[in-house]
Amino acid sequence: MTQNIYDNAKFFAEYSALDRSIQGLDGAPEWPRSRSYIPDLEGLDVLDLGCGFGWFARWARSTGANSVRAIEISENMLSRARDLTNDPKIIYEQGDLDNIKLSEHDSDLYDVVFSSLTLHYLANLPELIQQVQTVLKPGGTLVFSIEHPIYTAPKEAKFVTDAVSGREYWPLDSYQKEGLRVTDWLAEGVQKQHRTTASYVNLLLKAGFQITEFDEWFPNPEEMEKCRWYRVLERPVYLLISAVKN
Amino acid sequence: MTQNIYDNAKFFAEYSALDRSIQGLDGAPEWPRSRSYIPDLEGLDVLDLGCGFGWFARWARSTGANSVRAIEISENMLSRARDLTNDPKIIYEQGDLDNIKLSEHDSDLYDVVFSSLTLHYLANLPELIQQVQTVLKPGGTLVFSIEHPIYTAPKEAKFVTDAVSGREYWPLDSYQKEGLRVTDWLAEGVQKQHRTTASYVNLLLKAGFQITEFDEWFPNPEEMEKCRWYRVLERPVYLLISAVKN
Repeated sequence: MTQNIYDNAKFFAEYSALDRSIQGLDGAPEWPRSRSYIPDLEGLDVLDLGCGFGWFARWARSTGANSVRAIEISENMLSRARDLTNDPKIIYEQGDLDNIKLSEHDSDLYDVVFSSLTLHYLANLPELIQQVQTVLKPGGTLVFSIEHPIYTAPKEAKFVTDAVSGREYWPLDSYQKEGLRVTDWLAEGVQKQHRTTASYVNLLLKAGFQITEFDEWFPNPEEMEKCRWYRVLERPVYLLISAVKN
Repeated sequence: MTQNIYDNAKFFAEYSALDRSIQGLDGAPEWPRSRSYIPDLEGLDVLDLGCGFGWFARWARSTGANSVRAIEISENMLSRARDLTNDPKIIYEQGDLDNIKLSEHDSDLYDVVFSSLTLHYLANLPELIQQVQTVLKPGGTLVFSIEHPIYTAPKEAKFVTDAVSGREYWPLDSYQKEGLRVTDWLAEGVQKQHRTTASYVNLLLKAGFQITEFDEWFPNPEEMEKCRWYRVLERPVYLLISAVKN
Protein backbone atom coordinates (compact mmCIF):
# COMPACT_ATOMS: atom_id res chain seq x y z
CA MET A 1 0.00 0.00 0.00
CA THR A 2 1.35 3.41 -0.96
CA GLN A 3 2.01 5.80 1.91
CA ASN A 4 -0.89 8.25 2.03
CA ILE A 5 1.13 11.27 3.10
CA TYR A 6 -1.50 13.74 1.90
CA ASP A 7 -3.76 12.59 4.72
CA ASN A 8 -1.04 13.46 7.24
CA ALA A 9 -2.39 16.63 8.89
CA LYS A 10 0.87 18.59 8.87
CA PHE A 11 1.72 17.61 5.29
CA PHE A 12 -1.76 18.41 4.08
CA ALA A 13 -1.79 21.81 5.76
CA GLU A 14 1.56 22.75 4.25
CA TYR A 15 0.76 21.29 0.84
CA SER A 16 -2.52 23.23 0.84
CA ALA A 17 -0.54 26.45 1.27
CA LEU A 18 1.60 25.91 -1.84
CA ASP A 19 1.01 28.00 -4.96
CA ARG A 20 0.03 24.92 -6.90
CA SER A 21 -2.70 24.18 -4.35
CA ILE A 22 -4.10 27.70 -4.15
CA GLN A 23 -3.68 28.89 -7.73
CA GLY A 24 -4.15 25.46 -9.29
CA LEU A 25 -2.40 24.70 -12.56
CA ASP A 26 -1.19 28.28 -12.94
CA GLY A 27 0.71 27.91 -9.67
CA ALA A 28 2.65 24.91 -11.04
CA PRO A 29 5.64 26.22 -12.98
CA GLU A 30 5.95 23.06 -15.08
CA TRP A 31 2.29 23.13 -16.18
CA PRO A 32 2.78 25.08 -19.45
CA ARG A 33 5.18 22.38 -20.62
CA SER A 34 2.87 19.52 -19.58
CA ARG A 35 -0.05 21.27 -21.22
CA SER A 36 1.85 21.55 -24.50
CA TYR A 37 2.00 17.72 -24.62
CA ILE A 38 -1.75 17.24 -24.20
CA PRO A 39 -3.74 16.85 -27.40
CA ASP A 40 -6.91 18.83 -28.07
CA LEU A 41 -9.29 17.23 -25.58
CA GLU A 42 -12.52 18.09 -27.41
CA GLY A 43 -14.79 15.07 -27.05
CA LEU A 44 -12.09 12.88 -25.49
CA ASP A 45 -12.26 10.62 -22.46
CA VAL A 46 -9.58 11.31 -19.91
CA LEU A 47 -8.12 9.44 -16.94
CA ASP A 48 -6.21 11.40 -14.27
CA LEU A 49 -3.94 9.37 -11.97
CA GLY A 50 -3.35 11.23 -8.70
CA CYS A 51 -5.79 14.06 -9.29
CA GLY A 52 -5.18 15.99 -6.07
CA PHE A 53 -7.63 18.87 -5.80
CA GLY A 54 -8.96 18.19 -9.30
CA TRP A 55 -7.44 21.20 -11.04
CA PHE A 56 -6.48 19.21 -14.11
CA ALA A 57 -9.82 17.39 -14.28
CA ARG A 58 -11.73 20.68 -14.29
CA TRP A 59 -9.31 22.22 -16.81
CA ALA A 60 -9.75 19.18 -19.08
CA ARG A 61 -13.52 19.57 -19.02
CA SER A 62 -13.22 23.32 -19.60
CA THR A 63 -11.30 22.60 -22.81
CA GLY A 64 -13.93 20.20 -24.08
CA ALA A 65 -13.11 16.75 -22.67
CA ASN A 66 -16.13 14.47 -22.78
CA SER A 67 -15.43 12.90 -19.39
CA VAL A 68 -12.75 12.70 -16.74
CA ARG A 69 -12.18 9.85 -14.31
CA ALA A 70 -9.98 11.22 -11.53
CA ILE A 71 -8.30 8.91 -9.03
CA GLU A 72 -6.70 9.98 -5.77
CA ILE A 73 -5.55 8.15 -2.63
CA SER A 74 -6.05 11.04 -0.23
CA GLU A 75 -9.51 11.56 1.22
CA ASN A 76 -8.48 15.07 2.23
CA MET A 77 -7.71 15.97 -1.34
CA LEU A 78 -10.75 14.24 -2.80
CA SER A 79 -13.00 16.00 -0.36
CA ARG A 80 -11.69 19.39 -1.43
CA ALA A 81 -11.76 18.36 -5.09
CA ARG A 82 -15.43 17.51 -4.79
CA ASP A 83 -16.14 20.82 -3.03
CA LEU A 84 -14.47 22.68 -5.91
CA THR A 85 -16.29 20.76 -8.64
CA ASN A 86 -19.83 20.98 -9.99
CA ASP A 87 -19.71 18.70 -12.99
CA PRO A 88 -21.33 15.26 -13.33
CA LYS A 89 -18.85 14.33 -16.09
CA ILE A 90 -15.96 14.36 -13.63
CA ILE A 91 -15.97 11.18 -11.56
CA TYR A 92 -13.71 11.31 -8.51
CA GLU A 93 -12.66 7.98 -7.09
CA GLN A 94 -10.59 7.03 -4.08
CA GLY A 95 -7.90 4.55 -5.00
CA ASP A 96 -4.36 3.36 -4.27
CA LEU A 97 -2.55 3.30 -7.60
CA ASP A 98 -0.22 0.60 -6.29
CA ASN A 99 -3.14 -1.80 -5.91
CA ILE A 100 -5.78 -0.55 -8.30
CA LYS A 101 -7.50 -2.40 -11.10
CA LEU A 102 -8.23 0.29 -13.66
CA SER A 103 -10.72 -1.98 -15.36
CA GLU A 104 -12.05 -5.48 -14.67
CA HIS A 105 -12.41 -6.55 -18.29
CA ASP A 106 -12.41 -3.56 -20.63
CA SER A 107 -9.63 -2.10 -22.68
CA ASP A 108 -9.42 0.94 -24.99
CA LEU A 109 -11.40 3.15 -22.60
CA TYR A 110 -9.46 6.45 -22.62
CA ASP A 111 -7.93 8.78 -25.17
CA VAL A 112 -5.62 10.50 -22.73
CA VAL A 113 -4.10 9.45 -19.40
CA PHE A 114 -2.53 12.22 -17.33
CA SER A 115 -0.54 12.04 -14.12
CA SER A 116 1.14 14.92 -12.32
CA LEU A 117 3.92 14.26 -9.79
CA THR A 118 2.42 10.99 -8.61
CA LEU A 119 4.13 7.99 -10.22
CA HIS A 120 7.35 8.35 -8.22
CA TYR A 121 5.41 7.29 -5.12
CA LEU A 122 4.50 3.90 -6.57
CA ALA A 123 6.29 0.62 -5.86
CA ASN A 124 4.16 -1.28 -8.41
CA LEU A 125 4.63 1.14 -11.28
CA PRO A 126 5.36 -1.55 -13.91
CA GLU A 127 1.96 -3.10 -13.24
CA LEU A 128 0.24 0.29 -13.45
CA ILE A 129 1.95 1.23 -16.73
CA GLN A 130 0.84 -2.06 -18.21
CA GLN A 131 -2.73 -1.33 -17.12
CA VAL A 132 -2.55 2.17 -18.59
CA GLN A 133 -1.46 0.64 -21.87
CA THR A 134 -4.50 -1.63 -21.75
CA VAL A 135 -7.07 1.03 -20.93
CA LEU A 136 -5.71 3.54 -23.46
CA LYS A 137 -7.20 3.41 -26.93
CA PRO A 138 -4.71 2.67 -29.75
CA GLY A 139 -2.93 5.94 -30.54
CA GLY A 140 -3.92 7.28 -27.14
CA THR A 141 -1.54 9.50 -25.18
CA LEU A 142 0.03 9.15 -21.74
CA VAL A 143 1.39 12.43 -20.34
CA PHE A 144 3.06 12.42 -16.95
CA SER A 145 5.44 14.33 -14.74
CA ILE A 146 7.53 12.83 -11.96
CA GLU A 147 10.24 13.96 -9.63
CA HIS A 148 13.40 13.59 -11.69
CA PRO A 149 15.58 10.56 -10.85
CA ILE A 150 18.50 12.90 -10.19
CA TYR A 151 16.32 14.53 -7.56
CA THR A 152 15.09 11.32 -5.94
CA ALA A 153 18.38 9.38 -5.97
CA PRO A 154 20.56 10.81 -3.19
CA LYS A 155 20.66 9.36 0.29
CA GLU A 156 20.58 12.98 1.50
CA ALA A 157 18.69 15.07 -1.01
CA LYS A 158 19.88 18.51 0.03
CA PHE A 159 22.27 20.90 -1.68
CA VAL A 160 25.76 20.96 -0.19
CA THR A 161 27.81 24.13 0.11
CA ASP A 162 31.54 23.59 -0.15
CA ALA A 163 33.09 25.11 2.97
CA VAL A 164 36.14 26.44 1.14
CA SER A 165 34.94 27.56 -2.29
CA GLY A 166 31.34 28.34 -1.37
CA ARG A 167 30.35 26.35 -4.43
CA GLU A 168 26.94 24.68 -4.21
CA TYR A 169 26.19 21.29 -5.64
CA TRP A 170 23.70 18.48 -5.54
CA PRO A 171 25.28 15.50 -3.76
CA LEU A 172 24.36 12.76 -6.19
CA ASP A 173 24.86 9.17 -5.11
CA SER A 174 22.97 5.86 -5.09
CA TYR A 175 21.63 6.58 -8.57
CA GLN A 176 21.49 2.92 -9.58
CA LYS A 177 20.07 1.79 -6.25
CA GLU A 178 16.38 1.83 -6.98
CA GLY A 179 13.74 1.64 -4.29
CA LEU A 180 12.50 3.43 -1.23
CA ARG A 181 13.70 6.91 -0.33
CA VAL A 182 12.53 8.67 2.81
CA THR A 183 12.75 12.46 2.79
CA ASP A 184 11.53 15.35 4.85
CA TRP A 185 9.45 17.62 2.63
CA LEU A 186 6.56 19.45 4.29
CA ALA A 187 6.48 16.60 6.80
CA GLU A 188 8.94 14.05 8.07
CA GLY A 189 9.20 10.59 6.59
CA VAL A 190 7.77 11.14 3.12
CA GLN A 191 8.24 7.91 1.17
CA LYS A 192 9.11 7.86 -2.53
CA GLN A 193 10.31 5.20 -4.93
CA HIS A 194 13.51 6.09 -6.76
CA ARG A 195 13.88 4.76 -10.30
CA THR A 196 16.46 5.68 -12.91
CA THR A 197 15.50 7.59 -16.04
CA ALA A 198 16.34 4.44 -18.00
CA SER A 199 13.85 2.45 -15.92
CA TYR A 200 11.03 4.88 -16.68
CA VAL A 201 11.85 4.92 -20.39
CA ASN A 202 12.18 1.14 -20.58
CA LEU A 203 8.96 0.55 -18.66
CA LEU A 204 7.21 2.53 -21.38
CA LEU A 205 9.01 0.91 -24.31
CA LYS A 206 8.43 -2.59 -22.97
CA ALA A 207 4.74 -1.90 -22.35
CA GLY A 208 4.32 -0.92 -26.01
CA PHE A 209 4.56 2.84 -25.88
CA GLN A 210 6.45 5.13 -28.20
CA ILE A 211 8.16 8.09 -26.53
CA THR A 212 7.04 11.33 -28.17
CA GLU A 213 8.17 14.03 -25.72
CA PHE A 214 10.87 14.01 -23.07
CA ASP A 215 11.69 17.02 -20.96
CA GLU A 216 13.90 17.68 -17.94
CA TRP A 217 11.91 20.75 -17.09
CA PHE A 218 13.50 24.05 -16.21
CA PRO A 219 12.02 27.55 -16.33
CA ASN A 220 12.48 29.79 -19.33
CA PRO A 221 13.61 33.33 -18.38
CA GLU A 222 10.04 34.62 -18.07
CA GLU A 223 9.00 31.70 -15.87
CA MET A 224 12.18 32.13 -13.79
CA GLU A 225 11.23 35.76 -13.17
CA LYS A 226 8.04 34.44 -11.58
CA CYS A 227 9.20 31.29 -9.75
CA ARG A 228 12.80 32.36 -8.94
CA TRP A 229 13.79 28.73 -8.74
CA TYR A 230 17.43 29.20 -9.71
CA ARG A 231 18.76 25.98 -8.27
CA VAL A 232 16.70 23.95 -10.71
CA LEU A 233 19.33 24.96 -13.31
CA GLU A 234 21.97 23.07 -11.33
CA ARG A 235 20.04 19.79 -11.36
CA PRO A 236 16.61 18.90 -12.75
CA VAL A 237 13.69 18.44 -10.40
CA TYR A 238 10.97 17.24 -12.77
CA LEU A 239 10.92 14.82 -15.65
CA LEU A 240 8.04 15.16 -18.11
CA ILE A 241 7.28 12.43 -20.61
CA SER A 242 4.66 11.98 -23.26
CA ALA A 243 4.16 8.59 -24.88
CA VAL A 244 1.73 7.15 -27.38
CA LYS A 245 0.25 3.65 -27.35
CA ASN A 246 1.50 1.85 -30.45
CA MET B 1 36.65 22.24 -35.47
CA THR B 2 36.51 19.57 -32.80
CA GLN B 3 39.51 19.34 -30.51
CA ASN B 4 41.64 16.44 -31.72
CA ILE B 5 42.83 15.31 -28.31
CA TYR B 6 43.73 11.82 -29.53
CA ASP B 7 46.60 13.33 -31.48
CA ASN B 8 47.95 14.87 -28.27
CA ALA B 9 51.01 12.71 -27.52
CA LYS B 10 50.41 12.31 -23.79
CA PHE B 11 46.70 11.62 -24.23
CA PHE B 12 47.35 9.13 -27.02
CA ALA B 13 49.99 7.27 -25.03
CA GLU B 14 47.72 6.97 -22.00
CA TYR B 15 44.63 6.14 -24.06
CA SER B 16 46.60 3.44 -25.85
CA ALA B 17 47.33 1.83 -22.49
CA LEU B 18 43.64 1.45 -21.53
CA ASP B 19 42.01 -1.97 -21.57
CA ARG B 20 39.66 -0.84 -24.32
CA SER B 21 42.62 0.02 -26.52
CA ILE B 22 44.61 -3.15 -25.90
CA GLN B 23 41.82 -5.72 -25.62
CA GLY B 24 39.48 -3.98 -28.03
CA LEU B 25 35.75 -4.38 -27.55
CA ASP B 26 36.20 -6.96 -24.79
CA GLY B 27 38.09 -4.35 -22.77
CA ALA B 28 35.12 -1.97 -22.89
CA PRO B 29 32.76 -2.93 -20.06
CA GLU B 30 29.74 -1.35 -21.76
CA TRP B 31 30.27 -3.26 -25.03
CA PRO B 32 28.02 -6.27 -24.25
CA ARG B 33 25.11 -3.85 -23.79
CA SER B 34 25.88 -1.90 -26.97
CA ARG B 35 26.27 -5.14 -28.88
CA SER B 36 22.84 -6.32 -27.75
CA TYR B 37 21.32 -3.30 -29.55
CA ILE B 38 22.99 -4.05 -32.88
CA PRO B 39 20.92 -6.05 -35.36
CA ASP B 40 22.32 -9.07 -37.18
CA LEU B 41 24.81 -7.40 -39.53
CA GLU B 42 24.84 -10.15 -42.18
CA GLY B 43 24.98 -8.39 -45.54
CA LEU B 44 24.44 -4.93 -44.05
CA ASP B 45 26.26 -1.68 -44.77
CA VAL B 46 27.61 0.00 -41.66
CA LEU B 47 28.88 3.49 -40.81
CA ASP B 48 31.08 3.94 -37.71
CA LEU B 49 31.41 7.50 -36.38
CA GLY B 50 34.60 7.87 -34.35
CA CYS B 51 36.07 4.46 -35.12
CA GLY B 52 39.25 4.77 -33.02
CA PHE B 53 41.46 1.76 -33.61
CA GLY B 54 38.79 0.09 -35.75
CA TRP B 55 37.80 -2.63 -33.26
CA PHE B 56 34.11 -2.23 -34.03
CA ALA B 57 34.64 -2.08 -37.79
CA ARG B 58 36.55 -5.37 -37.77
CA TRP B 59 34.01 -6.98 -35.44
CA ALA B 60 31.19 -5.86 -37.75
CA ARG B 61 32.88 -7.48 -40.72
CA SER B 62 33.60 -10.63 -38.71
CA THR B 63 29.87 -10.99 -38.03
CA GLY B 64 28.97 -10.65 -41.70
CA ALA B 65 28.62 -6.92 -42.46
CA ASN B 66 28.90 -6.25 -46.18
CA SER B 67 30.93 -3.07 -45.73
CA VAL B 68 32.05 -0.64 -43.06
CA ARG B 69 32.86 3.02 -43.54
CA ALA B 70 34.83 4.11 -40.48
CA ILE B 71 35.46 7.79 -39.75
CA GLU B 72 37.97 9.12 -37.24
CA ILE B 73 39.50 12.55 -36.60
CA SER B 74 42.78 11.28 -35.13
CA GLU B 75 45.56 10.38 -37.55
CA ASN B 76 47.25 8.48 -34.71
CA MET B 77 44.24 6.27 -34.29
CA LEU B 78 43.61 5.82 -38.00
CA SER B 79 47.20 4.83 -38.56
CA ARG B 80 46.97 2.09 -35.96
CA ALA B 81 43.53 1.05 -37.23
CA ARG B 82 44.96 0.57 -40.72
CA ASP B 83 47.87 -1.42 -39.32
CA LEU B 84 45.44 -3.72 -37.53
CA THR B 85 43.18 -4.23 -40.54
CA ASN B 86 43.51 -6.32 -43.66
CA ASP B 87 40.11 -5.98 -45.26
CA PRO B 88 39.23 -4.00 -48.40
CA LYS B 89 35.60 -3.76 -47.30
CA ILE B 90 36.54 -1.53 -44.37
CA ILE B 91 37.15 2.01 -45.57
CA TYR B 92 38.90 4.21 -43.04
CA GLU B 93 38.50 7.94 -43.53
CA GLN B 94 39.89 10.93 -41.69
CA GLY B 95 37.15 13.39 -40.83
CA ASP B 96 35.96 15.95 -38.30
CA LEU B 97 32.39 14.97 -37.42
CA ASP B 98 31.62 18.59 -36.55
CA ASN B 99 32.24 19.64 -40.14
CA ILE B 100 31.70 16.52 -42.18
CA LYS B 101 29.35 15.98 -45.09
CA LEU B 102 28.43 12.31 -44.85
CA SER B 103 27.18 12.39 -48.41
CA GLU B 104 27.02 15.03 -51.14
CA HIS B 105 23.73 13.94 -52.65
CA ASP B 106 22.84 10.41 -51.61
CA SER B 107 20.51 9.20 -48.90
CA ASP B 108 19.56 5.71 -47.66
CA LEU B 109 23.16 4.45 -47.77
CA TYR B 110 23.54 2.54 -44.50
CA ASP B 111 21.60 -0.03 -42.52
CA VAL B 112 23.37 0.64 -39.23
CA VAL B 113 25.20 3.67 -37.86
CA PHE B 114 27.32 3.06 -34.78
CA SER B 115 29.19 5.51 -32.58
CA SER B 116 31.08 4.74 -29.38
CA LEU B 117 31.90 7.51 -26.87
CA THR B 118 32.31 10.15 -29.56
CA LEU B 119 29.21 12.31 -29.91
CA HIS B 120 29.76 14.18 -26.62
CA TYR B 121 32.77 15.87 -28.22
CA LEU B 122 30.69 17.52 -30.96
CA ALA B 123 29.42 21.08 -30.95
CA ASN B 124 27.41 20.57 -34.17
CA LEU B 125 25.67 17.39 -33.09
CA PRO B 126 22.20 18.47 -34.31
CA GLU B 127 23.55 18.82 -37.83
CA LEU B 128 25.27 15.42 -37.66
CA ILE B 129 22.15 13.64 -36.35
CA GLN B 130 20.15 15.11 -39.20
CA GLN B 131 22.75 13.81 -41.66
CA VAL B 132 22.68 10.37 -40.01
CA GLN B 133 18.92 10.33 -40.48
CA THR B 134 19.42 11.10 -44.17
CA VAL B 135 22.08 8.49 -44.87
CA LEU B 136 20.30 5.74 -42.92
CA LYS B 137 17.91 3.58 -44.88
CA PRO B 138 14.28 3.64 -43.68
CA GLY B 139 14.06 1.30 -40.71
CA GLY B 140 17.82 1.59 -40.22
CA THR B 141 19.31 1.65 -36.74
CA LEU B 142 21.49 4.20 -34.95
CA VAL B 143 23.30 2.79 -31.90
CA PHE B 144 25.51 5.07 -29.86
CA SER B 145 27.11 5.52 -26.48
CA ILE B 146 28.11 8.84 -24.95
CA GLU B 147 29.42 10.06 -21.66
CA HIS B 148 26.29 10.45 -19.56
CA PRO B 149 25.06 14.03 -19.08
CA ILE B 150 25.29 13.54 -15.31
CA TYR B 151 28.97 12.81 -15.85
CA THR B 152 29.69 15.72 -18.19
CA ALA B 153 27.65 18.40 -16.37
CA PRO B 154 29.67 19.44 -13.29
CA LYS B 155 32.05 22.35 -13.29
CA GLU B 156 34.39 20.08 -11.32
CA ALA B 157 33.78 16.51 -12.34
CA LYS B 158 35.40 14.72 -9.42
CA PHE B 159 33.85 12.82 -6.52
CA VAL B 160 33.74 14.75 -3.27
CA THR B 161 34.31 13.14 0.12
CA ASP B 162 32.43 14.77 2.95
CA ALA B 163 35.00 15.66 5.61
CA VAL B 164 32.69 14.81 8.52
CA SER B 165 30.68 11.78 7.41
CA GLY B 166 33.15 10.33 4.91
CA ARG B 167 30.25 10.03 2.51
CA GLU B 168 31.22 10.23 -1.17
CA TYR B 169 29.10 11.92 -3.75
CA TRP B 170 29.15 13.32 -7.25
CA PRO B 171 28.98 17.12 -7.07
CA LEU B 172 26.30 17.76 -9.68
CA ASP B 173 25.75 21.31 -10.83
CA SER B 174 25.32 23.26 -14.08
CA TYR B 175 23.17 20.48 -15.51
CA GLN B 176 21.04 22.82 -17.63
CA LYS B 177 24.03 24.85 -18.78
CA GLU B 178 24.90 23.16 -22.02
CA GLY B 179 28.15 23.70 -23.86
CA LEU B 180 31.88 23.38 -23.42
CA ARG B 181 33.41 21.53 -20.50
CA VAL B 182 37.15 21.28 -20.03
CA THR B 183 38.39 18.37 -17.94
CA ASP B 184 41.64 16.67 -17.15
CA TRP B 185 41.39 13.03 -18.18
CA LEU B 186 44.59 11.36 -19.40
CA ALA B 187 45.74 14.84 -20.44
CA GLU B 188 44.93 18.38 -19.36
CA GLY B 189 42.35 20.47 -21.15
CA VAL B 190 40.18 17.79 -22.74
CA GLN B 191 37.18 19.53 -24.32
CA LYS B 192 33.69 18.05 -24.31
CA GLN B 193 30.25 19.37 -25.09
CA HIS B 194 27.74 18.88 -22.29
CA ARG B 195 24.13 18.30 -23.29
CA THR B 196 21.22 17.19 -21.14
CA THR B 197 19.63 13.78 -21.58
CA ALA B 198 16.52 15.58 -22.80
CA SER B 199 18.56 17.31 -25.51
CA TYR B 200 19.89 14.01 -26.84
CA VAL B 201 16.44 12.43 -26.81
CA ASN B 202 14.79 15.42 -28.44
CA LEU B 203 17.48 15.70 -31.12
CA LEU B 204 16.58 12.15 -32.11
CA LEU B 205 12.81 12.61 -31.93
CA LYS B 206 12.92 15.84 -33.92
CA ALA B 207 15.16 14.30 -36.59
CA GLY B 208 12.58 11.56 -37.14
CA PHE B 209 13.94 8.73 -35.02
CA GLN B 210 12.04 6.44 -32.72
CA ILE B 211 13.82 5.54 -29.49
CA THR B 212 14.03 1.76 -29.13
CA GLU B 213 16.62 1.24 -26.38
CA PHE B 214 17.80 3.54 -23.62
CA ASP B 215 20.33 2.51 -21.02
CA GLU B 216 22.24 4.27 -18.26
CA TRP B 217 24.84 1.57 -18.25
CA PHE B 218 26.15 -0.02 -15.08
CA PRO B 219 27.87 -3.38 -14.63
CA ASN B 220 25.96 -6.49 -13.65
CA PRO B 221 27.56 -8.40 -10.76
CA GLU B 222 29.70 -10.53 -13.07
CA GLU B 223 30.94 -7.49 -15.00
CA MET B 224 31.60 -5.67 -11.71
CA GLU B 225 33.78 -8.56 -10.59
CA LYS B 226 35.92 -7.86 -13.64
CA CYS B 227 35.91 -4.05 -13.89
CA ARG B 228 35.54 -3.21 -10.15
CA TRP B 229 34.04 0.12 -11.11
CA TYR B 230 31.93 0.53 -7.97
CA ARG B 231 31.46 4.27 -8.19
CA VAL B 232 29.49 3.93 -11.39
CA LEU B 233 26.62 2.75 -9.16
CA GLU B 234 26.56 6.18 -7.51
CA ARG B 235 26.14 8.08 -10.78
CA PRO B 236 26.00 6.87 -14.37
CA VAL B 237 29.01 7.37 -16.65
CA TYR B 238 27.65 6.17 -20.00
CA LEU B 239 24.34 6.63 -21.77
CA LEU B 240 23.53 4.10 -24.50
CA ILE B 241 20.73 4.75 -26.96
CA SER B 242 19.37 2.85 -29.90
CA ALA B 243 16.98 4.54 -32.32
CA VAL B 244 15.32 3.58 -35.55
CA LYS B 245 14.69 5.82 -38.55
CA ASN B 246 10.93 6.16 -38.96
